[in-house]
Amino acid sequence: MSKGTRLRDRMTETGLAHVMAAHSPLSARLAEEAGFDGLWASGFEFSALHALADVSLISMTQHLDMLRAMADRVELPIVADIDTGFGNAVNVVHAVRQYERAGAAAVVIEDKSFPKVTSLLAGGRQDLLRIEEFQGKVAAACASRRDPEFIVIARCEALIAGLGQDEALRRAAAYEEAGADMILIHSKEKTPDEVESFVRAWKGKVPVVIVPTAYPEMTAERIRALGKIRMVIYGNHAIRAAVTAMQATFAAILKDGGIHNVHKQIVPVEEIFRLQDMDRVKEAEKRFLR
Amino acid sequence: MSKGTRLRDRMTETGLAHVMAAHSPLSARLAEEAGFDGLWASGFEFSALHALADVSLISMTQHLDMLRAMADRVELPIVADIDTGFGNAVNVVHAVRQYERAGAAAVVIEDKSFPKVTSLLAGGRQDLLRIEEFQGKVAAACASRRDPEFIVIARCEALIAGLGQDEALRRAAAYEEAGADMILIHSKEKTPDEVESFVRAWKGKVPVVIVPTAYPEMTAERIRALGKIRMVIYGNHAIRAAVTAMQATFAAILKDGGIHNVHKQIVPVEEIFRLQDMDRVKEAEKRFLR
Amino acid sequence: MSKGTRLRDRMTETGLAHVMAAHSPLSARLAEEAGFDGLWASGFEFSALHALADVSLISMTQHLDMLRAMADRVELPIVADIDTGFGNAVNVVHAVRQYERAGAAAVVIEDKSFPKVTSLLAGGRQDLLRIEEFQGKVAAACASRRDPEFIVIARCEALIAGLGQDEALRRAAAYEEAGADMILIHSKEKTPDEVESFVRAWKGKVPVVIVPTAYPEMTAERIRALGKIRMVIYGNHAIRAAVTAMQATFAAILKDGGIHNVHKQIVPVEEIFRLQDMDRVKEAEKRFLR
Amino acid sequence: MSKGTRLRDRMTETGLAHVMAAHSPLSARLAEEAGFDGLWASGFEFSALHALADVSLISMTQHLDMLRAMADRVELPIVADIDTGFGNAVNVVHAVRQYERAGAAAVVIEDKSFPKVTSLLAGGRQDLLRIEEFQGKVAAACASRRDPEFIVIARCEALIAGLGQDEALRRAAAYEEAGADMILIHSKEKTPDEVESFVRAWKGKVPVVIVPTAYPEMTAERIRALGKIRMVIYGNHAIRAAVTAMQATFAAILKDGGIHNVHKQIVPVEEIFRLQDMDRVKEAEKRFLR
Repeated sequence: MSKGTRLRDRMTETGLAHVMAAHSPLSARLAEEAGFDGLWASGFEFSALHALADVSLISMTQHLDMLRAMADRVELPIVADIDTGFGNAVNVVHAVRQYERAGAAAVVIEDKSFPKVTSLLAGGRQDLLRIEEFQGKVAAACASRRDPEFIVIARCEALIAGLGQDEALRRAAAYEEAGADMILIHSKEKTPDEVESFVRAWKGKVPVVIVPTAYPEMTAERIRALGKIRMVIYGNHAIRAAVTAMQATFAAILKDGGIHNVHKQIVPVEEIFRLQDMDRVKEAEKRFLR
Repeated sequence: MSKGTRLRDRMTETGLAHVMAAHSPLSARLAEEAGFDGLWASGFEFSALHALADVSLISMTQHLDMLRAMADRVELPIVADIDTGFGNAVNVVHAVRQYERAGAAAVVIEDKSFPKVTSLLAGGRQDLLRIEEFQGKVAAACASRRDPEFIVIARCEALIAGLGQDEALRRAAAYEEAGADMILIHSKEKTPDEVESFVRAWKGKVPVVIVPTAYPEMTAERIRALGKIRMVIYGNHAIRAAVTAMQATFAAILKDGGIHNVHKQIVPVEEIFRLQDMDRVKEAEKRFLR
Repeated sequence: MSKGTRLRDRMTETGLAHVMAAHSPLSARLAEEAGFDGLWASGFEFSALHALADVSLISMTQHLDMLRAMADRVELPIVADIDTGFGNAVNVVHAVRQYERAGAAAVVIEDKSFPKVTSLLAGGRQDLLRIEEFQGKVAAACASRRDPEFIVIARCEALIAGLGQDEALRRAAAYEEAGADMILIHSKEKTPDEVESFVRAWKGKVPVVIVPTAYPEMTAERIRALGKIRMVIYGNHAIRAAVTAMQATFAAILKDGGIHNVHKQIVPVEEIFRLQDMDRVKEAEKRFLR
Repeated sequence: MSKGTRLRDRMTETGLAHVMAAHSPLSARLAEEAGFDGLWASGFEFSALHALADVSLISMTQHLDMLRAMADRVELPIVADIDTGFGNAVNVVHAVRQYERAGAAAVVIEDKSFPKVTSLLAGGRQDLLRIEEFQGKVAAACASRRDPEFIVIARCEALIAGLGQDEALRRAAAYEEAGADMILIHSKEKTPDEVESFVRAWKGKVPVVIVPTAYPEMTAERIRALGKIRMVIYGNHAIRAAVTAMQATFAAILKDGGIHNVHKQIVPVEEIFRLQDMDRVKEAEKRFLR
């Protein structure tokens, strides 16, 4: 069964796939063990792992290498965050082929212009592509997949760009028309209202994806009550958790003058061995080292 | 000032350099902020990041790429864990050149045969190289550095291999004679006794490095009391801390049915922005985007 | 149809597959256009492309990246030269999975010890593994493939090591017993006699592969007459041809004081455009740029 | 002496630096041996090596890895072709740091918009950036180098875009004002007239670079007669020579049914050994293998 099919099935079975951000095969593995339905190969988390701003500095090669390493170590379907597709529609053709071969189940492409300017910049432009231009990118993505079940998700940034719900709906409909399998609607409001309003007004046939980082009160219960949403992505909590723990551990080691305290507060080395499949290495050594 | 000089100075100034394991530019940055004296580009942590066993599966290319990314983002000197040097003395010549160019301040080479068989395997062989063979590797490393201050650390696994203190001392002396700048002595005893005994018996001129993972009671205070040790490496607590936190966070998200609780328990997104130097990106946008 | 199946079919159809060395997607493409049956992802040519000696300096990552890029651009099945398998049998398990995923149809593993010492070294050792040890590696390769049609080729260096035909036959039989699909027999004699003698004496069921670099008089006609050989690999003529031409062109440009002469002696830029599939880019631009 | 200084000195000494395209450490080495003054780490040749169109498909990571491998194997200064700088001025800041660390002596940035649309597309747009926008990129490049002798070359595509000589001169002057060390002027005319006219009209203080691929009659003699030009780049003759030779060799092997003829027409294996520095490996084996 293909990765795309597996993710589609998961959405059908559960009604709502919980997709967790990962930045490494290790975090991917932990998310799989925890019971998530899929993984978000997050551009933000991967940039953060490199201590680089998420403004198109990490190359497609670097992102693909990490996704491939994740796909080698987990069974969970992976949703690849490919930002704007690394250029125009021609780049999208190339990118989608590469991501499908690397083991992704889905890609998310956004309708911003390349390279992204950070949303934080005071007065920063949040330029969107013309609708027709982005339709071309969606169509290019759909035409370039080999597995028809591979999922193309169009991410609409109209609300982020302050263009309002009507423009967001108009764009989402145009992206569906171009072939998108799902619409990811993004908002930076502190409450779920804006996104809920969009979802209620959405008349398209394809389901919706959300990323409730900015509005954490959007629980699974509330999402299910809305309907139409089939995937929720938890966008950056893996790397934030890791940072929180490393800061505490590093400070403690220097304060304590050693590891005698921290070593009891973190998982033992044996737990890392388990996550590395050391038992399978031992088994291979027994079987094949002669 | 070269990286090697910086690390040498740090050891002279402090008497004991505290070197923290890192597996990414992000963890490197956190260790730098915490106040460590150097970074350990750990093969174990980097293998763990890939959810792969630490048995020479990760290639030199993968390790170098990560070390280079770390060196781009921190000022701290980096001690590279190059295992056995990726083959024989000819491979060491190639490796040392590559690691020095990538921005390392030091390399640690160990006297095991390639590829490593895990120490955990019941009855597993822990074959060491012949002394002369490893002397050749140490000499190759020293002859291949361009900066004479680049530090070559010889790691002696004689205690791990169960060959006893006399053999460990004999080997350490031979490695010093071959040009090693420091001797890393490793032990898997649960207490510091074995290592302390070695250090007391050590008559060489070059200082000692230890990695007290197995015997966490070896505090900085106790190390300083011993003398002769100029570097302590905390070998895997960064990745263990990260795993601990991700496991808890992932479980909580699924249990809570959302991120409404966890988002308060981990650092905010803004802290990640800070670690990504988003302010410098904003500054560059202001200065150069016209 | 899988890549392994395609290569097996090709050998059945033609009786003798002609496999050409390649060191890049471009050379792979040219070999495909010329009409070869398969490609040899040669460690020697790829080392040469990097101007590095073929003594295990190029990492598995670098070799895999190039093979993957080749597999993306050609339909021809690719035979991967994985030397000794990058370590012991545990490394072979890892390597075979990676090469199969990257798009290889077959791997060749040789029975030398890692890392290779150059055959040129006066008095250089050409140590072979113990037979049982190499059987373990062959078995590990066979057990690790996902597609049962993926081809595992055992390369026997007994003749190169000067151990004689009896040892070569004994080893080849042991490798077949361990699961090898084909036996590659290597010789550095200047005439085909040694290899012909081996092939005549070979009583195994699996077919033979040869690489007649040292004895170019071994033509396809002569190979077919022998029987039992199903694959001939032309091991390094792509890179040697490229070097020959670049040396001449570079010298001419400097001698002529310009490109006015050489530009008529080499293919025009348009031929490079063709090999880059520029027409498909134009087509994608027309179809998707809006 | 830094790489930038070396290239500056070379231009001063010779009056005109001859810079040869290379796509690998091997071709770089051949160009060095032939006697060129510098290397052109060509995006076109490197795309061609991957059999991919030169439309921003190859990532910065892939290009950097190859440049780094070249810089490891040759002493010649390398001029890096970074196209549009992989995005906007923020990407340029990142790129210039990476290229300088990787061992480049210079970068060439062009004033097209990203991603490039092929010049071949009938009616294809050849959009240039606004002058101020490109000045920002040039200023970003200059401000990001660590070595003040590192050379920033601004490539003006105004003639290619059909905007005429006045616009080309206006742009070149603006780029010089923004800090460019040299101006690369590009033309696709079949004769040198257009470029000669530009150079005669150029009143700036910084020297000019040309790439006479389309107008091969522009010999070194003619260039020197013009003055003002300090660098000529031979843009794609290495890969074209290699293709020419491989096509002939591949066809001959299949036609001849073997390598018995071609092996006499191409350099022997020993010549490849020489280019791989096999003698230095032998020396290292003698010195360090014990």
